[in-house]
Amino acid sequence: MSNIWPPAPTLRPGFKGNLQLTKNGELKHLLTIDGLPKDIITQILDTAQQFVGVAEREVKKVPLLRGKSVFNLFFENSTRTRTTFEIAAKRLSADVLNLNINASSTSKGESLLDTAANLSAMQADMFVVRHAQSGAPYLLAQHGPPHLHVINAGDGWHAHPTQGLLDMYTIRQYKKDFTQLRVAIVGDILHSRVARSDIHALTTLGVPEVRVIGPRTLLPDGLERFGVRVFHDIREGLKGVDVIIMLRLQNERMNSTLLPSAQEYFKSWGLTPERLALAAPDAIVMHPGPMNRGVEIESSVADGAQSVILHQVTFGIAVRMAVMGIIAGNNG
Amino acid sequence: MSNIWPPAPTLRPGFKGNLQLTKNGELKHLLTIDGLPKDIITQILDTAQQFVGVAEREVKKVPLLRGKSVFNLFFENSTRTRTTFEIAAKRLSADVLNLNINASSTSKGESLLDTAANLSAMQADMFVVRHAQSGAPYLLAQHGPPHLHVINAGDGWHAHPTQGLLDMYTIRQYKKDFTQLRVAIVGDILHSRVARSDIHALTTLGVPEVRVIGPRTLLPDGLERFGVRVFHDIREGLKGVDVIIMLRLQNERMNSTLLPSAQEYFKSWGLTPERLALAAPDAIVMHPGPMNRGVEIESSVADGAQSVILHQVTFGIAVRMAVMGIIAGNNG
Amino acid sequence: MSNIWPPAPTLRPGFKGNLQLTKNGELKHLLTIDGLPKDIITQILDTAQQFVGVAEREVKKVPLLRGKSVFNLFFENSTRTRTTFEIAAKRLSADVLNLNINASSTSKGESLLDTAANLSAMQADMFVVRHAQSGAPYLLAQHGPPHLHVINAGDGWHAHPTQGLLDMYTIRQYKKDFTQLRVAIVGDILHSRVARSDIHALTTLGVPEVRVIGPRTLLPDGLERFGVRVFHDIREGLKGVDVIIMLRLQNERMNSTLLPSAQEYFKSWGLTPERLALAAPDAIVMHPGPMNRGVEIESSVADGAQSVILHQVTFGIAVRMAVMGIIAGNNG
Repeated sequence: MSNIWPPAPTLRPGFKGNLQLTKNGELKHLLTIDGLPKDIITQILDTAQQFVGVAEREVKKVPLLRGKSVFNLFFENSTRTRTTFEIAAKRLSADVLNLNINASSTSKGESLLDTAANLSAMQADMFVVRHAQSGAPYLLAQHGPPHLHVINAGDGWHAHPTQGLLDMYTIRQYKKDFTQLRVAIVGDILHSRVARSDIHALTTLGVPEVRVIGPRTLLPDGLERFGVRVFHDIREGLKGVDVIIMLRLQNERMNSTLLPSAQEYFKSWGLTPERLALAAPDAIVMHPGPMNRGVEIESSVADGAQSVILHQVTFGIAVRMAVMGIIAGNNG
Repeated sequence: MSNIWPPAPTLRPGFKGNLQLTKNGELKHLLTIDGLPKDIITQILDTAQQFVGVAEREVKKVPLLRGKSVFNLFFENSTRTRTTFEIAAKRLSADVLNLNINASSTSKGESLLDTAANLSAMQADMFVVRHAQSGAPYLLAQHGPPHLHVINAGDGWHAHPTQGLLDMYTIRQYKKDFTQLRVAIVGDILHSRVARSDIHALTTLGVPEVRVIGPRTLLPDGLERFGVRVFHDIREGLKGVDVIIMLRLQNERMNSTLLPSAQEYFKSWGLTPERLALAAPDAIVMHPGPMNRGVEIESSVADGAQSVILHQVTFGIAVRMAVMGIIAGNNG
Repeated sequence: MSNIWPPAPTLRPGFKGNLQLTKNGELKHLLTIDGLPKDIITQILDTAQQFVGVAEREVKKVPLLRGKSVFNLFFENSTRTRTTFEIAAKRLSADVLNLNINASSTSKGESLLDTAANLSAMQADMFVVRHAQSGAPYLLAQHGPPHLHVINAGDGWHAHPTQGLLDMYTIRQYKKDFTQLRVAIVGDILHSRVARSDIHALTTLGVPEVRVIGPRTLLPDGLERFGVRVFHDIREGLKGVDVIIMLRLQNERMNSTLLPSAQEYFKSWGLTPERLALAAPDAIVMHPGPMNRGVEIESSVADGAQSVILHQVTFGIAVRMAVMGIIAGNNG
């Protein structure tokens, strides 16, 4: 396996323009943050802000998607991510259908496109798709009927745009202005769709300094062309940063040829109070979850005063409501 | 295993009349199309037509089953069929509960009747039942409390009545008049509950010529008494037909003693453009899904101009809404 | 493994008062019946009585929890119990999210508290928790945010309070006055959270004579301090009782070192018509389900005129609605 990020999924030959936007430039699908205009990102964050308020009310429900059918198509198991989308859709009053597709259609030998065609023939309004293969949500957006909206809930190593957006919401909440920030992303950058989505979002929003920190074996080559600075020493990399985004170390990487052991990883790359002290005094600590305490982050930091990790989860619901609400209105 | 269709499930000794009808002859359960009066089939198709309209509205919901509890009891896994019933029930505003029962009650050694008795004690209004054993939904209808309605979502080799009804809806949509049609059903008739339900429905609706086409090993003996013509040559069988219903070849039949191989099967029984050309020029092509492309049907036919396969799925939701709506009103 | 009931789960050091009550003495969580004041038990039963009426209406729904998010967190699989809570919450108009957590978060190595913290960050209003470890729901109630309510749906050997409450509802329904009753609980007392919850409830409600009947290997030592009479002969124990609660024999106990065989168990401890005849003539027979017919109870008794087993299920929905409705209103 070569040490580069796979290219963004390719589109149908002859396809012009931006697959996720309507002809009028409005958001129809959410597939990636790569190439997403800054004003759309800002629209999503502004809309999410209103939904944070909804979640604090007694009746946490608005009728925006009443009578719409949202299908959670999870070809890869992820209770947590599926749950956030399910809650978001239910708070918008949609009908939600959960489909874990490993065990059924696929085992009957049906192709992804046949499965999707069948589900959209049931007059689905929206697909939330998680798939181990990069580009699967693109395929569904390209081949779906005109009224169908697709949200990428994580595809292979490629993108996890709602995670990227909720990370932006969180940063904006605590730091207000993106244009003065130093942001560090730490860990297994190579296999992280979160890192990739965050880098695109941060760059688009005008963050002047994005740093990635990690071992050489877990950093893709050629990262500099994304406008980031690469560090192979965590103490160097964290100096003076305003935001620290820790990445989850996938279990399957531990004790593999890429890494010596979880303990060794923590020794070199774990976020400890001492290392955190190198960042700006008001730096915030983020993590997409679920955390490996004692592997990529020390518990005292995860639960400490600078951690905003649980707030990310709360904002994540509002951001997903915002994305769903916005795309449902854009059928142009 | 003998080459005959198993008899229809037997009823409780002493049971008189038609289990699925009320004393007034109205539909209370939907267990089989065998013996279902023509006017009830027509009532279901007419009602479904109204629900097709609902699905095209912005708010795809009507309050017909508001406050009712619909239980999807799937003793056999089928994400697709379960999903169609779940959508149908939710669009009628019912509360839907999904129970995949392989892994829990059954493993605790509870009998089907005990499980059902417990669930109906929770004041279930409707059971949608799929079970590997023919007659399981009959058992539940016989022993359930008076207010409970049962829909057969596929029982063993026996029946799949909502599939039969959606097939009739589809044929009526494209061909209007049943009494002038030639309809061919192609493939593994022996193990197909779809074929059986279709044959009963077509006969009841007055189709003058129903043909079944397939290898001798996959055709039940004595089919002629159902009023159908049997063909062992697909080119002969397809000549001049108005409707072609292709059946799914179950994976477990392939490479078994009944069949040489999937490739051989396609060579003899697959629907190709050349074979389709033998039918009437405006013949429609149907399939209950999920399709094995290249086994029972060539992709160019599955996706071709004469294919109405995805429309079947759409009509299937409306037909299930119709069945649920009708039986919920009949408690006599 | 010693033959005693494990102590009730311990609380956070320094915790004062009753974890499941607010400062004003109102029910905030339902964790155990041990220590639950009599007037709260009575409040739950009275409220449940109103909900029994709801279930008999055409529209079985009230808007009490509209816009609230109820999470069913089942770390131990139990389709039946999960379903009763799901129905109860839906009839209260809540949004319900089902999470079977064995297969996902836990396998990713996340701790119970991290999982719970994440889910409550999604603005969950209520957790319904089943867990193999005694005290798990306590942990969630102690560490959850102030607005979160926790219902124990069975924790280890410890407690199953909604089962205890529905048993009380059932007894009150048929016997009216608790203060004149003799109640027998029969079977594997040692491993039964139902037995323990029932004993606490019966004692609190003033039942003068609670008997436990079972083999020495399945009776905890020191039961007398709970105010019960212990019998090792079922014929002795059943004499003149008004209520018989049969316990389920867990499959894993059969043919273990604790028990010779299911047949032997039935011979000594199974409820037969002959043994039932020793009780009061109008005694009722209860069982928490699912039953092992022919192991702890003979079929003719399970389905007989004195059995109220299915009524327990019906009342169970109403009792769970009552608990949810009451705690949702108590945030003090």
